[in-house]
Amino acid sequence: MEKVGEFHFVTEEYLLDFRGRVTIPMIGNYLMHAASNHASTRGFGFNDMSEKHTAWVLSRLAIEIQEYPSMSQPIKVYTWIDEVGRLFTSRCFELTDDTGKSMAFARSIWAAIDMETRRPTSLDIEGLSVYLSDRSCPIERPGKISPVESNTPGVPYQIKYSDLDVNGHLNSIKYMEHLLDLFDLEMFKAREVQRFEIAYMSEGKYGMPLTLHKEEAVQNRYNMAICHDGKAICRAAATWTEAKG
Amino acid sequence: MEKVGEFHFVTEEYLLDFRGRVTIPMIGNYLMHAASNHASTRGFGFNDMSEKHTAWVLSRLAIEIQEYPSMSQPIKVYTWIDEVGRLFTSRCFELTDDTGKSMAFARSIWAAIDMETRRPTSLDIEGLSVYLSDRSCPIERPGKISPVESNTPGVPYQIKYSDLDVNGHLNSIKYMEHLLDLFDLEMFKAREVQRFEIAYMSEGKYGMPLTLHKEEAVQNRYNMAICHDGKAICRAAATWTEAKG
Repeated sequence: MEKVGEFHFVTEEYLLDFRGRVTIPMIGNYLMHAASNHASTRGFGFNDMSEKHTAWVLSRLAIEIQEYPSMSQPIKVYTWIDEVGRLFTSRCFELTDDTGKSMAFARSIWAAIDMETRRPTSLDIEGLSVYLSDRSCPIERPGKISPVESNTPGVPYQIKYSDLDVNGHLNSIKYMEHLLDLFDLEMFKAREVQRFEIAYMSEGKYGMPLTLHKEEAVQNRYNMAICHDGKAICRAAATWTEAKG
Repeated sequence: MEKVGEFHFVTEEYLLDFRGRVTIPMIGNYLMHAASNHASTRGFGFNDMSEKHTAWVLSRLAIEIQEYPSMSQPIKVYTWIDEVGRLFTSRCFELTDDTGKSMAFARSIWAAIDMETRRPTSLDIEGLSVYLSDRSCPIERPGKISPVESNTPGVPYQIKYSDLDVNGHLNSIKYMEHLLDLFDLEMFKAREVQRFEIAYMSEGKYGMPLTLHKEEAVQNRYNMAICHDGKAICRAAATWTEAKG
């Protein structure tokens, strides 16, 4: 089995945003599809983990986009494991057009949790290491994101049915959606997100009252947080550039 | 070219709800994929319509589900045109498992609008009629849904970036998501939606303050509406049955 997985998609017009571009949460969905299928065809997918009463949990994700896919565009997603540790593994992604031209890179950090205790469990270092690849992923690792919740009032949000994943927790992709919705439409018209990064800290549950926070840290770089009871359950950052049209 | 289009999917674990089932909005996405590709490979897809400065607009949709697809399940969606009129065309769907066992049927009504005036335009009756099929779709057509907005206070909602489609209007699938979120999680635990139907009446725009309404009309049947300025932009109905587990 190849170390690098390759997956083909065609963007769908009814899933594009008002600019006719794929959204960051949708790119997140493509990455999840690739990660999930890469893992399951190599013996460490959702079902393999379930049998051991464990589950993959996305801990951090950073996406850098040089060019947003547009209408009905065939795209490819490549994914590979670039690090395996006792508690975390790092998975990289490259998104290209159908000629192989790079459009985006992403880095993700995953932990495995015990499904009963919801606590991290040790990874199968030997098994995963078989698939380690040194393919290049020329973007910065997900880093530290400064707290913003004490500086900004926060927009209230309550977790709903549509937000829940199969574990009954706030879906990883929905965090992104709610955070990006903090930006005014004018931002999306004039600029575009060049880097988006998110750190998942604890699990959002149904009905949980949340507050969504955002603050410009330096020019064009915003830090964000989703809080419950004043405590962050997630931090994120977005770096904006001029829209490339 | 076959009259009936056939499309294959495998359900994805990170897109399932807390029950481990595909959601109604996700079924809606599968149907949109099938409709969009069925149309574009037959010369009346998004791009063909754009060239004539027109666009397809979903007017009504009814989905009846006998069995919700579950984890990593291969499914097939069949779609065909069953009626063509001057201003509206009716498209049917059947969703089956990989052995061909029926899981859901759906009926949809579409209009073509002029992209400048946003008004309905005449359909190419002759061109579309080539693909008319009399394949059976044994569910009731989308029907009249009684107003509920004057009987219920309504939950406020404001249209955000993530809600917008490529035309800059509230995405058809997002209407469903927001309406289903009106139901308490306990409903989804004990029961399941057997029929969901929706009538799109006017276009939701960014920032528009909306109210979401729901009322039990007869036992297990709820009527819903999304209103702006007290006027419905959409009506919907959901019929619930005991969960089949």
